[in-house]
Amino acid sequence: MSFVPPVGSYAVIFCSHRTEVDGGYGATAAHMVELASQQPGFLGVRSSRDAALGITVSYWESLEAIAAWRKNLEHREARNQGRAQWYRQYELQVVRVERAYAWQSMDGAADPAP
Amino acid sequence: MSFVPPVGSYAVIFCSHRTEVDGGYGATAAHMVELASQQPGFLGVRSSRDAALGITVSYWESLEAIAAWRKNLEHREARNQGRAQWYRQYELQVVRVERAYAWQSMDGAADPAP
Repeated sequence: MSFVPPVGSYAVIFCSHRTEVDGGYGATAAHMVELASQQPGFLGVRSSRDAALGITVSYWESLEAIAAWRKNLEHREARNQGRAQWYRQYELQVVRVERAYAWQSMDGAADPAP
Repeated sequence: MSFVPPVGSYAVIFCSHRTEVDGGYGATAAHMVELASQQPGFLGVRSSRDAALGITVSYWESLEAIAAWRKNLEHREARNQGRAQWYRQYELQVVRVERAYAWQSMDGAADPAP
């Protein structure tokens, strides 16, 4: 933790509802994180999934870096599989970081917001 | 689902690691979602928490709407309690929506990205 993306960098917010189908989902998801992290311009990723919803936020230096990752063939095939069997629905936003900060308990209880 | 925030709207991405302390966390979190959804300029919220990480993304019409919600007294008190007992660490970003779309399985398996 304590990752603070630079102002002017970008993120992809991906919210998904899964189907009941497993079929290699976990292994593919882990492989995609590994592949993404080797891409030029990759800054970081955060992911959480509970029974209702999964949210993954990946952070990138530029829109060009996001576009290049979208073109990756393995990533494209994984997205196709996602729509064919793993996801019931999803929402995706590309966003620009306007402000960012992090807080840890050792920082004390004061509000860290600038 | 199938929420698509307008281009030019804003979101707050909040990633948090919890402590072991419960102390009313769930009730307060639910109350904050209820309060936020009554705020002017609130567009929607998505939330997921697993054992490692919680991610909440709230969507807003404008930076002014986010600033007004930050000033809400109950919200301020909840943030103070969060730092005092519920959170070990967190990361927060304010972001601008540049592109957004949603997909549902009934749309078929083709790539929905523009």
